[in-house]
Amino acid sequence: MSATIKSVAEHAGVSIKTVSRVINNEGTVKPDTLAKVQAAIDELNYKPNKAARDLAGRDNFVLGYVYDNPNAYYIIDMQKGILNECRANGYELLIHPCDASSRDIIQEILGMVDSARLAGLILSPPLSEMPEVLSALDEKGVRYVRILSGSEALENGPPCVLVNDYQAAYQITEHLIQQGHRDIGFIAGEKQHNSTIERQKGFAAALAAHDLPQHPEFVIEGTYSFGTGVESIEKLLTLPHIPTAVFACNDEIAAGALFGARMRGVDVPATLAIAGFENSPFSRQTFPPLTTASQPTDQIAQRATSTLIQSLKARKLGNDKQPIPAHVFVPELVVRESTNRS
Amino acid sequence: MSATIKSVAEHAGVSIKTVSRVINNEGTVKPDTLAKVQAAIDELNYKPNKAARDLAGRDNFVLGYVYDNPNAYYIIDMQKGILNECRANGYELLIHPCDASSRDIIQEILGMVDSARLAGLILSPPLSEMPEVLSALDEKGVRYVRILSGSEALENGPPCVLVNDYQAAYQITEHLIQQGHRDIGFIAGEKQHNSTIERQKGFAAALAAHDLPQHPEFVIEGTYSFGTGVESIEKLLTLPHIPTAVFACNDEIAAGALFGARMRGVDVPATLAIAGFENSPFSRQTFPPLTTASQPTDQIAQRATSTLIQSLKARKLGNDKQPIPAHVFVPELVVRESTNRS
Repeated sequence: MSATIKSVAEHAGVSIKTVSRVINNEGTVKPDTLAKVQAAIDELNYKPNKAARDLAGRDNFVLGYVYDNPNAYYIIDMQKGILNECRANGYELLIHPCDASSRDIIQEILGMVDSARLAGLILSPPLSEMPEVLSALDEKGVRYVRILSGSEALENGPPCVLVNDYQAAYQITEHLIQQGHRDIGFIAGEKQHNSTIERQKGFAAALAAHDLPQHPEFVIEGTYSFGTGVESIEKLLTLPHIPTAVFACNDEIAAGALFGARMRGVDVPATLAIAGFENSPFSRQTFPPLTTASQPTDQIAQRATSTLIQSLKARKLGNDKQPIPAHVFVPELVVRESTNRS
Repeated sequence: MSATIKSVAEHAGVSIKTVSRVINNEGTVKPDTLAKVQAAIDELNYKPNKAARDLAGRDNFVLGYVYDNPNAYYIIDMQKGILNECRANGYELLIHPCDASSRDIIQEILGMVDSARLAGLILSPPLSEMPEVLSALDEKGVRYVRILSGSEALENGPPCVLVNDYQAAYQITEHLIQQGHRDIGFIAGEKQHNSTIERQKGFAAALAAHDLPQHPEFVIEGTYSFGTGVESIEKLLTLPHIPTAVFACNDEIAAGALFGARMRGVDVPATLAIAGFENSPFSRQTFPPLTTASQPTDQIAQRATSTLIQSLKARKLGNDKQPIPAHVFVPELVVRESTNRS
């Protein structure tokens, strides 16, 4: 049976009228009473009904996910994680893909927050890494959570969730080295995604740690796409001296590289090992399946959403000074046939 | 330069106050004046600003897309088409995946429409094909558009967009027959999707038209998933008498079938031809690429959204008696290497 306003009032030891004032955000409730009511709401998992919500004014129940990312699997996994957490907390989700490089991007985002009366935003790269977007949101008092590539959060910065791409890329590269590879190619995604930078740093660090030289001609720049994989493998396989392994910045690139290798009749993994990053369905559905780093995108998204909701609650309680600690995800190495020589 | 309320008033030959009444849906404007103002709004592509929207009360600018479909590429393409049309008309999009078989599905959908103040809904199969959902929406006066498998709309039914799966499946099957195949397998998706039924009917009709027998053991039932493809091909290839071609109900199944065939060392297309349906990225990124039917999901979604917006405008103008004609999409045969013996 779901909780009612009556059960919340009893649980908190206050009147129904007081609970109603809290739900409707009337601002006439003492802080410690407010905290008691909020605790009872949380404990009983009470969902204010429509009437209460309509009365709530500023207190809306729609979150927005703003993104600029062409990777269908990433977006679907992000949506899945956000939606799980929304559902558990009585929120709905509005999605707004955009062109992060557009001149009007800030106006576009602020307009959307206003017109759809959003409670807060979830931002993934590259938007979460654009200072001008963040400061415009701060100025307007719009709550948001950032998903970022990195290992440590800024002190007193806005709420965020971190993905340690550096460490995961280091592990993938080390795995290739352990398989006996010395000449390893790297296919990069967009440079405006910090994940690309961090993965390339991890790659370089692992080579350096094993005293292996870096060949500049083995690093190909591209985008996080299947097409980049196909084109890059063409470039790598026509070099005078060719690599025996390739680390692609995501699974979609890796799947394209695998496709390109097969087109040229190159055997994977016997002649060329290929690793990706993300553990998307791509990595399991190619033939042979791809070695990759398992990035739990849906869990990352879910954690980001719960962090945002926590931040919205803290503001409502006026208890907003304690920063919420950032959770750090480290993608894990998954070895499959595409790099397995044995 | 974007249109202002002043330019709309001048264009329509009315006062600013009258335009404001129309935007705010006050209901005190004569029908022909209303029509004139609406025409001016459309012609100048005027977007009421936030203040006007907030005043508009019932007139909200968020549409909802409700779906129960595990196919990532289908969902992303649907979202893309809906978002294109939303953007062109100043709407935002809320997404709400759900379990269509849940007992509370109707309550869930109605609750969402209420709490997020949605203007209307876009429904794709199987939800668009569930009479109990449709009648609950009708009863509450919620506007929606349906995307359906079929070739002809109900007279005076709610707005819809049709996809002629039957005809496209007939063409794929005929293509396989023309390649010399007589023993053709069929791998079905979920039976609660009409598309499955229609595609199977098209398959059977093409066999019958060419006087070819139907082997019941060649028809495998499953879901629209990669896993179904892998498992079904296992069943088909271990029959005493095996098919030389397989028509999979979508590209994800076909990609799974191709994966399964390669696992067993079966050459595609020399020993086994495989065709899919949808023209998703799957069909271009497998090796060899898949023959399929090009279903322009994003265009279908965009058309559905424009039909919904048209229906919302018609209601606003009180001009709601004329049904909006249903557009019919016919997916087109795309021949690639997976069925090409030459």
